[in-house]
Amino acid sequence: MTATDTLTGTPIALVGLGKIAIDQHHPSILKSGAFRLAATVSRNAGLDGIPAYTSLAALLDNQPEVTAVSLCTPPQVRHAMAREALEAGLDVMLEKPPGATIAEVEALTDLAAARGRVLFATWHSRFAAGVPAAKAWLAGRQILRGTITWREDVRRWHPGQRWIWQAGGLGVFDPGINALSILTEILPAPLRLTGAELEFPENQETPIAARLSYLTGAAPIAADFDFRQEGPQSWAMEFETDDGVLSLADGGATVSAGGQNLSQGEALGSEYDGLYARFARLIATRTSEVDLSPLKHVADAFMLGRRLTTDPFIE
Amino acid sequence: MTATDTLTGTPIALVGLGKIAIDQHHPSILKSGAFRLAATVSRNAGLDGIPAYTSLAALLDNQPEVTAVSLCTPPQVRHAMAREALEAGLDVMLEKPPGATIAEVEALTDLAAARGRVLFATWHSRFAAGVPAAKAWLAGRQILRGTITWREDVRRWHPGQRWIWQAGGLGVFDPGINALSILTEILPAPLRLTGAELEFPENQETPIAARLSYLTGAAPIAADFDFRQEGPQSWAMEFETDDGVLSLADGGATVSAGGQNLSQGEALGSEYDGLYARFARLIATRTSEVDLSPLKHVADAFMLGRRLTTDPFIE
Repeated sequence: MTATDTLTGTPIALVGLGKIAIDQHHPSILKSGAFRLAATVSRNAGLDGIPAYTSLAALLDNQPEVTAVSLCTPPQVRHAMAREALEAGLDVMLEKPPGATIAEVEALTDLAAARGRVLFATWHSRFAAGVPAAKAWLAGRQILRGTITWREDVRRWHPGQRWIWQAGGLGVFDPGINALSILTEILPAPLRLTGAELEFPENQETPIAARLSYLTGAAPIAADFDFRQEGPQSWAMEFETDDGVLSLADGGATVSAGGQNLSQGEALGSEYDGLYARFARLIATRTSEVDLSPLKHVADAFMLGRRLTTDPFIE
Repeated sequence: MTATDTLTGTPIALVGLGKIAIDQHHPSILKSGAFRLAATVSRNAGLDGIPAYTSLAALLDNQPEVTAVSLCTPPQVRHAMAREALEAGLDVMLEKPPGATIAEVEALTDLAAARGRVLFATWHSRFAAGVPAAKAWLAGRQILRGTITWREDVRRWHPGQRWIWQAGGLGVFDPGINALSILTEILPAPLRLTGAELEFPENQETPIAARLSYLTGAAPIAADFDFRQEGPQSWAMEFETDDGVLSLADGGATVSAGGQNLSQGEALGSEYDGLYARFARLIATRTSEVDLSPLKHVADAFMLGRRLTTDPFIE
């Protein structure tokens, strides 16, 4: 069974049925000609008409035809599932972030290579409609400065997600890593952190806000990540260059530069359509794709950042 | 001028004249046949009989024969100096940690490669006398569990080092990264963090203690880093294996296994003699050596670790 089997597609199992799996992964798999949803694995949830298991072992026992899994479990438990899947001979796609530490993802990469399996560490925001145009436009220009404004209401976008507030859940860096995945994709020169402040609610283990100072070449990039945004939400970037301004909004769906529209917002679902198309191509060519640079930037922020304590967060 | 010029050796400048430069680098350069100390760079210090400058630019203007620098400045300012040195065409040796972020060291690595310069990110503890024997002994055995006890008195070993308590200075991970540099050298399988607690004094930006839980394969490794150790100091590791116990003490200088001495403690200075011998060989072969794994493990600990607030630290 390969990705080119368009009658049925590669049988894939969706592991972890949280908000992102229901909102994004399931619809994109249904639309995909390359995959068919063969099963789900979750401790307590299922999807109508799809065989459901509570463990990867049970899935493998009952449906040995499954050759790929898409892991949407929280990052703190992703490693154990990914390891089990690779050792069982499955190709593996990982939601972002690909793990709770750099070392564990590097170990998975080595394991996938040793077993000849495909490992795809996804960054869905890189598949936002305007990202390729933004990258192409910046490639020929000199950036003078940039601002990243990634402010959202955690109660609206992460309802009941306790894991995001537990050590390893990254807090505001869970959305912030999306901005970093776009930045590391579109900037012509490497990015490096020079200073940061992280605000931790006094009753939580992860930050609710972060202010970050970067350099790319000699150009300063200021990033503002915040989980306390009420009213209009903002996933935006602006870059002043030697030849006009590039503006990116709606998480990368909308891009304009030098007064011209390069991309009009498209439905967010298209990011995940792009991820599954890429996973199908990686499977067809037996190639892994693991870029750890966004996770390294988050780790750098925790290592270099000053910690401030702020008001308790109660959902 | 090359490392084989034994009449005078490669002219090297020592940049940053703090405790480690005076205690370790200077004596090792004096003993080295491969280098001769041509100059120092420091804002406010010098060494008798050695030309002293307050900036790298002044050094380059006055002594263009210098082809290598050894950077002992605090990690927060190491990047700018290293970049300036590489761009000026110098080969560069970095004290540990090689920088304040992963991204900035990766950028230096790329810069060194682009300019054809040698970059050596040193881990002095890997040159402790017993490390090669420990590695060889563990290679043929299965580790069942390990404990790392790295406890020292910060007032004794880091007097007046304000930078160690400032964001980016790593706190107790400044010595702890030495343990991690040994671990990543001697363990047969990769190490990954599964949980951590970091204690921050309420008046400082970096941790004074850390308790870390790792796995290597299926074996648990528990690490205890503490800056509050009075009385006997401890830089020790113990590994229980399927074929006896390996004990490492004195930061890797003393190693015994299965009841036999593999290494008797040697003077700490020998670690730095080894570093300069390695740097000379890297220069002779035009090869860089930058292993970021110890720094990645520290970043992982900051990213995954739970933060606890503890008593203020006043030196």
